[in-house]
Amino acid sequence: MDFTSKNFSYVTESFGSVMERVRSGARLYLRSLSHEKPSEMPAQIEDDFPSLAADFSLPPELDYVTKGKFSSVLRVSGRVNMWLHYDVMANVYSQIVGSKRMILFPPSDVKHLSFAPGASSSGLDVFTALDTRSSLLAGTRPHEAILHPGDLLFLPALWLHAAEPKTDMSVAVNVFFRDLDSNYYAGGRDVYGNKDLEAYDKGRQAAARIGKSFQQMPKETRRFYLARIADELLQAAEEG
Amino acid sequence: MDFTSKNFSYVTESFGSVMERVRSGARLYLRSLSHEKPSEMPAQIEDDFPSLAADFSLPPELDYVTKGKFSSVLRVSGRVNMWLHYDVMANVYSQIVGSKRMILFPPSDVKHLSFAPGASSSGLDVFTALDTRSSLLAGTRPHEAILHPGDLLFLPALWLHAAEPKTDMSVAVNVFFRDLDSNYYAGGRDVYGNKDLEAYDKGRQAAARIGKSFQQMPKETRRFYLARIADELLQAAEEG
Repeated sequence: MDFTSKNFSYVTESFGSVMERVRSGARLYLRSLSHEKPSEMPAQIEDDFPSLAADFSLPPELDYVTKGKFSSVLRVSGRVNMWLHYDVMANVYSQIVGSKRMILFPPSDVKHLSFAPGASSSGLDVFTALDTRSSLLAGTRPHEAILHPGDLLFLPALWLHAAEPKTDMSVAVNVFFRDLDSNYYAGGRDVYGNKDLEAYDKGRQAAARIGKSFQQMPKETRRFYLARIADELLQAAEEG
Repeated sequence: MDFTSKNFSYVTESFGSVMERVRSGARLYLRSLSHEKPSEMPAQIEDDFPSLAADFSLPPELDYVTKGKFSSVLRVSGRVNMWLHYDVMANVYSQIVGSKRMILFPPSDVKHLSFAPGASSSGLDVFTALDTRSSLLAGTRPHEAILHPGDLLFLPALWLHAAEPKTDMSVAVNVFFRDLDSNYYAGGRDVYGNKDLEAYDKGRQAAARIGKSFQQMPKETRRFYLARIADELLQAAEEG
């Protein structure tokens, strides 16, 4: 699936039908939403699938995750890939049935991976690029994890990742959690746990205003000053 | 001379004494200021040296310069170098007595030449660096001009430049002029014609606020978002 070209469609189906179709090889991906308010609240497996929830619990060693818990999501996939994206929340990804190949890139690789400004998803087909040793991945540091039933993967916030099932059916539960001070997260609805930090939204708006204030100047003037200001932002990131 | 380490001192002397001392090899540099209000108004040779002014006029081909004229400056130098800097105004530099070596770099080289954020002067000794083929100049594109009496050099705004006299005494007059829409220049006093554009000052302040909003976050988070915002600024420079 490619989120940027939207080469898939969203459908609502009964759970039984989804499971049946995935079993027969359909290219489907189920990502659970809140049973009660699917467009407003984040998914919580204990509310959304109460009869399954008892089978899933995080070990006490992961109390840090449980305390910052934002959402728990049931994922069932047939032979379809999850596109390259990042989440603003950290998460632990628990593989339950089948196996899955995850490719992760550190956050600083974002500049190499065709993420449009402000976008948390990229249209880059990471798996094809890796298999063909494509130059599209030049400068990146891909990490690979093959998850089998019982494996739990910690996915730090902002790490770019894509997933490819290695079996016809893959079932997983992942728990998103906040690991930054809660003030940093943007207010308002965040069903998917990937609403960008408030400081990023505001920073982008401020940057757009800065860009606009130079817009009518000759290109060399714009480049000179905007590059210097951009450099100060990069330096600010290194301070403290 | 190095403006950043201030390895020189400012003195007030009579014109005759300066000329006498330069003639005897003193390491002096005279940069004229407004006779009437030296700390408030830009220099104008016709007001500051009325008895010399008649000897200097720009040819009609340079009406564009005369129309945007901001300041005309008499410069007399002994064996001292002018440090690397840029001016926000464009200027035409007219060599009258002696000769001078000018090194110019295009504005985009600013990132390689040790200019502190917001500074229009650098402490880099360009002449030593060039003569020793120093790696401090890696990635830069220095241009050299040797000016002899009667030569006139157009120095575009924002081009980084440094000057070295090739004779014991060098006399020049340069005319700063505005070649951007006058709204872009910052208001208030600008004695030297190098007060940065208002958009740069405001942009730097906005960038500082953006940086601050990320300051308490983990370094990886700061780097991720600030680099993305910096990238948007660079993209804005290429638009239109």
